Amino acid sequence: MGIDALIERIRDKRNPTVAGLDPRLEHLPPWLLAEEIAASGETLAAAANAVRRFNTALLDALADVVPAVKLQSACYEALGPEGMAVLRDSIAYARALGYYVIADAKRGDIGSTAECYSAAFLGRVRVGQTDIAPFDADAVTVNPYQGSDSIKPFLEDMKTYDRAIFVLGRTSNRSSSELQMLCVPDRPLYRAVADLTDRWGMPFVGKYGYTSVGLVVGATQPSEIRELREHFPQLFFLVPGYGAQGGTAWDVSRAFDRMGRGAIVNSSRAILCAWQKKGAPENFAEAARAEALRMKEELGKCIQCM
Amino acid sequence: MGIDALIERIRDKRNPTVAGLDPRLEHLPPWLLAEEIAASGETLAAAANAVRRFNTALLDALADVVPAVKLQSACYEALGPEGMAVLRDSIAYARALGYYVIADAKRGDIGSTAECYSAAFLGRVRVGQTDIAPFDADAVTVNPYQGSDSIKPFLEDMKTYDRAIFVLGRTSNRSSSELQMLCVPDRPLYRAVADLTDRWGMPFVGKYGYTSVGLVVGATQPSEIRELREHFPQLFFLVPGYGAQGGTAWDVSRAFDRMGRGAIVNSSRAILCAWQKKGAPENFAEAARAEALRMKEELGKCIQCM
Repeated sequence: MGIDALIERIRDKRNPTVAGLDPRLEHLPPWLLAEEIAASGETLAAAANAVRRFNTALLDALADVVPAVKLQSACYEALGPEGMAVLRDSIAYARALGYYVIADAKRGDIGSTAECYSAAFLGRVRVGQTDIAPFDADAVTVNPYQGSDSIKPFLEDMKTYDRAIFVLGRTSNRSSSELQMLCVPDRPLYRAVADLTDRWGMPFVGKYGYTSVGLVVGATQPSEIRELREHFPQLFFLVPGYGAQGGTAWDVSRAFDRMGRGAIVNSSRAILCAWQKKGAPENFAEAARAEALRMKEELGKCIQCM
Repeated sequence: MGIDALIERIRDKRNPTVAGLDPRLEHLPPWLLAEEIAASGETLAAAANAVRRFNTALLDALADVVPAVKLQSACYEALGPEGMAVLRDSIAYARALGYYVIADAKRGDIGSTAECYSAAFLGRVRVGQTDIAPFDADAVTVNPYQGSDSIKPFLEDMKTYDRAIFVLGRTSNRSSSELQMLCVPDRPLYRAVADLTDRWGMPFVGKYGYTSVGLVVGATQPSEIRELREHFPQLFFLVPGYGAQGGTAWDVSRAFDRMGRGAIVNSSRAILCAWQKKGAPENFAEAARAEALRMKEELGKCIQCM
């Protein structure tokens, strides 16, 4: 679905949080993995089954708190084809529960290849006379390094299937400055990326004034968030880096407009691993829910979602 | 395996070609897909099985001609988890036949996520006490946009498992100039990427003077290939864009040093779809082999591999 659907889900839940389902095996309660290993041996299938149960329980527990989930494809690829089946199934389960689902795949390649990536995550593949949606997410993250023709196939599928993308702009990791802050020549590279992103989004402005071509802006770069918010009133921001990576509620509040719209804040480890902090491996889903509620409250002090 | 293994395979075959196994369904002989649809219906499983047979036949037919294959992950992701199983199996089959295998995944993400990507393609995942290699390629392509900490996990797995990576530098597509040619501020962005790549490769210099951290440089940018060859004598180039995208043998010859080393040239569609040109869908593997031999000869006129 396009950006309007995300904005409305945020409004309905009064919570601009996206929960990152980025499960590494060390994030799982040990008993869960142990049960699956007992059933299927020390295999990727066992690991994938454990992740599937983990995701399902979290999706059930968070459904009335969190409007969106983001699934980090790397965590599923690391479990091979079995992991990719969990990615597909978790996306479907989340959408059935009413979540807005972002596949965090950061794909980027030349046009003819980008068509395949877009078909994989947003579009359809035709087999004989049948159109099949391989992963079927609402939105996918993309990498801008190869320029417009690597983005165009996604824009086409956005039109056809009412979807969204988020372009990597200013990321939250420490070394992101090595390229993103280079001056090209009168402003940093990430600003050139934001300009391109803004242009790509022009045909996709929704009823709240935001486009379905969003931008990833790390919570660890608060002054840049603020500057981008001012200069690009149409860009919806996906903001990673809150919590574990150091971004505060105040930092991320700058990503929002006066109506409390225009961004969604990701939290992965704090929610996924809440059971570790509470020493409650049996009740991992309840612990995740409690953390999601805490985060909602914390963000609510700085941001009013309308 | 590291870059030395690739250099030696190129020498043994006297052929600096990597065959791109980037099969889209329209690249398959229709009878092959029809047989699988007859067996399994119009499903991604049927499509994936057809691709598996296609790849196997091509790998058999090209094994004494071509030293390396590059598998474009997008084509497999577009067929869902079933496609990813074919990616895994084709990598294993190719390596068993003695090919050097590059997974063309162009992954890039923050450090903790890059660990998962690296484990997926080059490394191992531990399940209980068992280490499992999910996709197990010799090398993977990576995207530099997030900087050093997104590359570091790959460098670590390269050390542990003797592997290689290729960093996107100057790509072959038309819109690549939008960012890669921006001046930062005294030289184009792709040169800054090449500098970083050169630095990342320092600890990985092999016995032929090349490092296992290579660079992707499109055949469609001949003057830049030449400049990069001069300035970065340690960087091994992966050169896409030959043939279908417009690069000539003379263009790509500039990627090589005086010994005929330092690069490998990709051809995907020309080899995969050779059966279409010849009107020989039954003999698609022979057609691919004939095209690979023709390309070897064509490149051999400009490049002497020693």
